[in-house]
Amino acid sequence: MKERNKLSPWKNKLHEIIYEADTPMGKLFDIVLFIIIIFSILLIMLESVKKIDADYHEILFNLEWAVTIFFTVEYIARIVCIKQPKRYIFSFYGIIDFLSTIPLYLSYIFAGSQVLLAVRAFRLLRVFRILKLVQFLGESHHLKSALKASRAKITVFLFAVMIVSVILGTLMYYVEGDEAGFTSIPTSIYWTIVTLTTVGYGDIAPITPQGQFIATLIMLLGYGIIAVPTGIVTSELGKQSNDKSNKKNIGTYVHVNTQACPNCSKEGHRDDASHCYNCGSQLNE
Amino acid sequence: MKERNKLSPWKNKLHEIIYEADTPMGKLFDIVLFIIIIFSILLIMLESVKKIDADYHEILFNLEWAVTIFFTVEYIARIVCIKQPKRYIFSFYGIIDFLSTIPLYLSYIFAGSQVLLAVRAFRLLRVFRILKLVQFLGESHHLKSALKASRAKITVFLFAVMIVSVILGTLMYYVEGDEAGFTSIPTSIYWTIVTLTTVGYGDIAPITPQGQFIATLIMLLGYGIIAVPTGIVTSELGKQSNDKSNKKNIGTYVHVNTQACPNCSKEGHRDDASHCYNCGSQLNE
Amino acid sequence: MKERNKLSPWKNKLHEIIYEADTPMGKLFDIVLFIIIIFSILLIMLESVKKIDADYHEILFNLEWAVTIFFTVEYIARIVCIKQPKRYIFSFYGIIDFLSTIPLYLSYIFAGSQVLLAVRAFRLLRVFRILKLVQFLGESHHLKSALKASRAKITVFLFAVMIVSVILGTLMYYVEGDEAGFTSIPTSIYWTIVTLTTVGYGDIAPITPQGQFIATLIMLLGYGIIAVPTGIVTSELGKQSNDKSNKKNIGTYVHVNTQACPNCSKEGHRDDASHCYNCGSQLNE
Amino acid sequence: MKERNKLSPWKNKLHEIIYEADTPMGKLFDIVLFIIIIFSILLIMLESVKKIDADYHEILFNLEWAVTIFFTVEYIARIVCIKQPKRYIFSFYGIIDFLSTIPLYLSYIFAGSQVLLAVRAFRLLRVFRILKLVQFLGESHHLKSALKASRAKITVFLFAVMIVSVILGTLMYYVEGDEAGFTSIPTSIYWTIVTLTTVGYGDIAPITPQGQFIATLIMLLGYGIIAVPTGIVTSELGKQSNDKSNKKNIGTYVHVNTQACPNCSKEGHRDDASHCYNCGSQLNE
Repeated sequence: MKERNKLSPWKNKLHEIIYEADTPMGKLFDIVLFIIIIFSILLIMLESVKKIDADYHEILFNLEWAVTIFFTVEYIARIVCIKQPKRYIFSFYGIIDFLSTIPLYLSYIFAGSQVLLAVRAFRLLRVFRILKLVQFLGESHHLKSALKASRAKITVFLFAVMIVSVILGTLMYYVEGDEAGFTSIPTSIYWTIVTLTTVGYGDIAPITPQGQFIATLIMLLGYGIIAVPTGIVTSELGKQSNDKSNKKNIGTYVHVNTQACPNCSKEGHRDDASHCYNCGSQLNE
Repeated sequence: MKERNKLSPWKNKLHEIIYEADTPMGKLFDIVLFIIIIFSILLIMLESVKKIDADYHEILFNLEWAVTIFFTVEYIARIVCIKQPKRYIFSFYGIIDFLSTIPLYLSYIFAGSQVLLAVRAFRLLRVFRILKLVQFLGESHHLKSALKASRAKITVFLFAVMIVSVILGTLMYYVEGDEAGFTSIPTSIYWTIVTLTTVGYGDIAPITPQGQFIATLIMLLGYGIIAVPTGIVTSELGKQSNDKSNKKNIGTYVHVNTQACPNCSKEGHRDDASHCYNCGSQLNE
Repeated sequence: MKERNKLSPWKNKLHEIIYEADTPMGKLFDIVLFIIIIFSILLIMLESVKKIDADYHEILFNLEWAVTIFFTVEYIARIVCIKQPKRYIFSFYGIIDFLSTIPLYLSYIFAGSQVLLAVRAFRLLRVFRILKLVQFLGESHHLKSALKASRAKITVFLFAVMIVSVILGTLMYYVEGDEAGFTSIPTSIYWTIVTLTTVGYGDIAPITPQGQFIATLIMLLGYGIIAVPTGIVTSELGKQSNDKSNKKNIGTYVHVNTQACPNCSKEGHRDDASHCYNCGSQLNE
Repeated sequence: MKERNKLSPWKNKLHEIIYEADTPMGKLFDIVLFIIIIFSILLIMLESVKKIDADYHEILFNLEWAVTIFFTVEYIARIVCIKQPKRYIFSFYGIIDFLSTIPLYLSYIFAGSQVLLAVRAFRLLRVFRILKLVQFLGESHHLKSALKASRAKITVFLFAVMIVSVILGTLMYYVEGDEAGFTSIPTSIYWTIVTLTTVGYGDIAPITPQGQFIATLIMLLGYGIIAVPTGIVTSELGKQSNDKSNKKNIGTYVHVNTQACPNCSKEGHRDDASHCYNCGSQLNE
């Protein structure tokens, strides 16, 4: 079994550099990658500023190609040095990495494929690998499970907000006219949500006394119901921290590192682990 | 007694399909109904967009008639297949269903009866029947009882906000002039609530230094007192979840289904119930 | 001592009607007064709407006189039927009542004294007498003591917000120019508070990239620190409700009524009280 | 050792006046200083108002010089009467004091050094010395440690907000065009944060239906995730107040005063202390 799971030495080396962040080389690679990701996002931003694009179009275009080639090479390397490439390709990060790479290639085939460039920002999530990964993911996990526990409550809440917005938006369309900007029911519903969430652009605003009266009620409603998601999350977080302090007496915590299994890519192994806790294949030392 | 409570078999069948969601046919009916409700709301929205209405007026008008006829038939069926139609007609859902049906008929008599179309959005509440009804209603009940418990506090709070708005609105009317948009005291009060709830459209905004100073105080006040409803709901939800965890040791929970009593329309019967817990009449199997 | 404290019978009767709300006559008086207060506020609002004032100036002016005369008579009656008029005159309600009465008289002497009319809205606080007074005041007391307990924290917080606003406002004045609306440092500080409290009128908005960047930081700061007053009030309310549930085992509650001492005007006597708990003088039956 | 630590008597006297607030002279000095700081900030504000500056430029300029000279003398005095001047110069307050003093001198060398004047507002923090210092700092310490404890959670949260803003901002840039104000990706990201934090200036607002739909989602997201920092801070404050009430049984509290060590400037000595708890040198009586 061990034979089957073994990768050739240079693939092993590559895997350690690309997928892990505990060796100096692995750490360096992650930092370089993070800088290039930020650089690639800045590039997209600069290209969108007309004046800069007009003056430096050539340079920006070439840099964009350089970044794309780097991402392509990295993507291929990630596939090559893993034993089960499918696991990576169809993982969250695998899809993000793919979508971050192809827009420039696609731009020769389809116009408008640049919208995909926005996906690159997701790659920034890799920063958590470089920082004290485990602690931060622990925190975000904490938040995530609080949000998960209050999922049903939040669904009910969002559904109620939606129904209220449709009703009040339709009402405002009949009360106010085109003059005030309420040109159609969808626009009216848009305005209702702008008001209910207390954003209040002011591009559309009621001008008749009746409209202003209803608007006042919507604002007070929005001002009041913001208490609901806040109350839900707060009481959930409070509960969780109680659970955690209780749990401390029962279980124990061990330190885990950023090493990834060369077979199934699972992370979070114990420092003294020699085999993957998920698939049982041998880990790199 | 059983004889009196029995409906003819086809009415029984109809009742099961329309009022319940546990049989395949009942579930299908609810899903079809839900799609038609959403479709009818989209129809109203599309009609309100001038450009679409100009191009497809005929089609939209005919579809609106089709929906209205479907709702009419459904409404009559609901009345027919229940033993005590009054209970349904004067229930919350009964009134909503009625108001969702008549606007098109009324439009031949009164102009402007289309405002009633907004009521249709309430029918969306039926979605909770299709989804895991009991769990979600349980959650919404949780929220509802938290809001109920803090009713007195919220009334005091809203009353205080109202008085503060009247006072500060009147003050701003005298401090700022017509130039800044403060054309009357009601408008000034409207502006005060727009500011206090941190919506801030900007259609009216103070321009004198004194007005801006008072506006600053109103904003800080609004920014601060948002803490009050949030605090109330949060501490209420916290209390409730404590109560719930205590209760778990005392009572037990049984699974209830969406079956409705053919006599009194009460829902939430135990799976093994043969008689209505409310009126005692026999349930359909 | 009893002799000294006794008022003539008709004054006693008047005191019962005006100051208390437990007898039918007292309740009626309070309700009539409340309606007239609301009416007087609506009057001020209508006068401020140019179109209405132009058409009905004479009527509104006469009605305003009628209200003023009613308030004057009520104010004099309140002074006459109490043994220690000073206590009433310099109490919170006494000052409000006085300021609600004089603007019309003053308008013959000073122009602009109408600003005082805004004070009338405070009279609305009397509504709590008509509603189930004690319960609501209990709730508002609950809120008040939570706010009192977090007074020091809130002061620190407001002071920090003030300093941050001054610093960032001054900074924005130098970064943005007159073009964007940042015409002076006070205006800049006003804008900073508009942004920090998430009101966001948009009458002034940054246009340079640097200004927009700083604005972004201010918004995130404001979005984040709203958590602070909310957290303070919530944890305070949570603590209080714990205290209350503990207290329930120790003390007992008795029902108090709206009767007011004819000598010192203290309210909240026990139903079976015959002497004022504050000054010891005999209460009306 | 005592010999080395002793300052000449007049320096001792000066130290007591400038650095401490328990003697009448020390208190007076702090109050005078606070008034001058507020005055100097008002001066900067008035100078920025064009109309006032045009009329009173000479007077304002002279007063600015007077304030600058006072601050210079105070700064030198603070350095002279302390044994380890470096400790003061490189402390937070030392740097603030320095930056509050030099702008006027620098204005002869560099243009635009007036931006530094904004730093003066930090000097307002000295107000806590004049008020009941210890209690208030205790409260702010309470807040500070709650914020510190939730630092990791807040970092994750801010990072998530940043990534979401970049992605949605880029998306909106491609969906909306120049017409609606989305002229470049950085501007789009700015708009996204304006919307997400519910500020909503309205200087940029979506006009296409798709753009308004995405905007609606951003608003609901922003309206919902404001619950996260609030929940974090609230549950942290709740935990802390539990800790505090537990701690009360264990430790004891002593009263500390505003006296500062003449050697190392540490504050918060016990009333009965004769030597600094930090460096051991003798305190002034």
